[in-house]
Amino acid sequence: MSKGRIFSGMQPSGKFHLGNYMGALENWVKLQNDYECFFSIVDLHALTSAYADTSKIPENIYNMALDWLSAGLDPEKNVIFVQSKVKEHAELHLLLSMMTPLSWLERVPTYKDKLQQLGAQGKDINTYGFLGYPELMTADIILYKAGFVPVGEDQLPHLELAREITRRFNNLYSPIFPEPQGLMSEAAVLPGIDGRKMSKSYGNTIPFASSPDELRERVRMIITDPQRIKKTDKGNPDVCVAFKFHKLFNKEEIVEIDQACRSASIGCVDCKKRLAEKMVHIMGAMHVRRQEYEGKPEKIREILEAGTERARKVAAATMEEVREAMHLQ
Amino acid sequence: MSKGRIFSGMQPSGKFHLGNYMGALENWVKLQNDYECFFSIVDLHALTSAYADTSKIPENIYNMALDWLSAGLDPEKNVIFVQSKVKEHAELHLLLSMMTPLSWLERVPTYKDKLQQLGAQGKDINTYGFLGYPELMTADIILYKAGFVPVGEDQLPHLELAREITRRFNNLYSPIFPEPQGLMSEAAVLPGIDGRKMSKSYGNTIPFASSPDELRERVRMIITDPQRIKKTDKGNPDVCVAFKFHKLFNKEEIVEIDQACRSASIGCVDCKKRLAEKMVHIMGAMHVRRQEYEGKPEKIREILEAGTERARKVAAATMEEVREAMHLQ
Ligand code: SF4
Ligand code: SF4
Repeated sequence: MSKGRIFSGMQPSGKFHLGNYMGALENWVKLQNDYECFFSIVDLHALTSAYADTSKIPENIYNMALDWLSAGLDPEKNVIFVQSKVKEHAELHLLLSMMTPLSWLERVPTYKDKLQQLGAQGKDINTYGFLGYPELMTADIILYKAGFVPVGEDQLPHLELAREITRRFNNLYSPIFPEPQGLMSEAAVLPGIDGRKMSKSYGNTIPFASSPDELRERVRMIITDPQRIKKTDKGNPDVCVAFKFHKLFNKEEIVEIDQACRSASIGCVDCKKRLAEKMVHIMGAMHVRRQEYEGKPEKIREILEAGTERARKVAAATMEEVREAMHLQ
Repeated sequence: MSKGRIFSGMQPSGKFHLGNYMGALENWVKLQNDYECFFSIVDLHALTSAYADTSKIPENIYNMALDWLSAGLDPEKNVIFVQSKVKEHAELHLLLSMMTPLSWLERVPTYKDKLQQLGAQGKDINTYGFLGYPELMTADIILYKAGFVPVGEDQLPHLELAREITRRFNNLYSPIFPEPQGLMSEAAVLPGIDGRKMSKSYGNTIPFASSPDELRERVRMIITDPQRIKKTDKGNPDVCVAFKFHKLFNKEEIVEIDQACRSASIGCVDCKKRLAEKMVHIMGAMHVRRQEYEGKPEKIREILEAGTERARKVAAATMEEVREAMHLQ
């Protein structure tokens, strides 16, 4: 029995890395077993920061679909689709915009932060659409009457606003929408191989599409306890980046490795080899699935089109109700 | 030969009066002979001020269509349709929103005025959608690649913004849109029967749907030169509201009436009777057409649906180009 319906989306903003996977996708792969899931590649949201150069969007959508399928999202079980292909997102967004006080959007705490942050990267995103980001997110969720949204702590203000807009619609017109609940995930935060935040701009990522050998090579480069120069030096796992990886990918052995490191009975090279093999093992199934889909854009397109059809049906039915509630028949 | 394509719209915000007709519709009736016209009942725009109570919208749409047909808009010659039925308006609005600087919308001179004005009427329209009004207007126009938009002086800032947004799209993506030009109309301003602005809230209107007898009755109530108490008093047409009506509906006789009034050779009752008969004559054809459609919601619905189909085809073709230009294929 499904525990309810979930909507979640990701922006197709470039190549996926292992940090992205651990941050959200790993959780989705679990959720698909218990919930009816609508997973959307939200290309319209990507436009808020990418409107000035949209040339990479098709490639990014393709790569994202490939990453999702590799990770193990089942296209039969879940509705996997591209947001811009379902016009009802735009329609509901416009209708909600008419009844949403401007101040609700202006006061979202992340709004001004994000403006500044992307502004510092030379991106001028102070647009009408960027201000309306949470409005579109609300439309995304309630269009499918999703009862649940997986969220991290930083997205709670957006969810709270979505709930507020939903209540306002229900009060003004007709109570047709469930108020979406947040499903808090304890998203594991994977650092980059240099210990900073994993980010393309730092060049410290492990690409999610890595082959076993590429994975081994990247793990080899993870920085370790900087005080441990020689193999005979005793190490301190608490300051070692590789140890953080062990905690996520090799839980079974962390006690042993902690001791071996502190007593200098294991060297960093061997320690990271053990980590690499563990990661190769865990990601093996993903690598196999990736090969199944890689270089087959036709297959990916078919999967996305089938998902889009399923999404459209649900969206169209909701919009019928919305238009009736708003006397726009 | 058509001189080009026009888009124009009116909000279905209640019963039409003769002032509304003179302000815009009379002009449309002329334009339909020279241009390919898309005339839209813009119910989505109406939501900016009517979102809190949308129950009257269906009736208002019906009445507006009836008014347009009565006035002589030809549903064969023109594309007459309801905005919300063509989803591409919402879609293009959303895409344009992503590339429109917030400041462009905030600085529209009429924006703050309108907020205050409707605020004073107890309407809280300080919504995200109201700020985006000119964005939606831009989408309306360029969705049909209209080269021309009939505008009054007060709408020039909106048109200028629409041109700016159009240029931005053309520069960022691909020059697929003509920059819409304003067709300035010398819209005749018809005062109310008490000399103030004709407005439902003043109760001084002449309903556009008036029958000949209702028209005569309303004309009888138009105020005249307040200094002219007795029929033998000489009058002053310059301060007479009825004379303003003569100027609009009875151009041929204004010299004669001016003299007759100043020399007291005509009384106000007779003077207004002449006006009334002239107006009954001018509006006779409209009254006949109204009777042809009145009480036939089926017929009106068919006309609107046929228009919507024609609009959709053009809109869908434009959106194909837009998506290609933006790499959202
Ligand atoms: S032995 Fe392992 S845990 Fe210890 S410092 Fe080296 S890589 Fe890190
Ligand atoms: S005679 Fe005619 S123009 Fe003169 S005051 Fe009377 S209504 Fe007005």
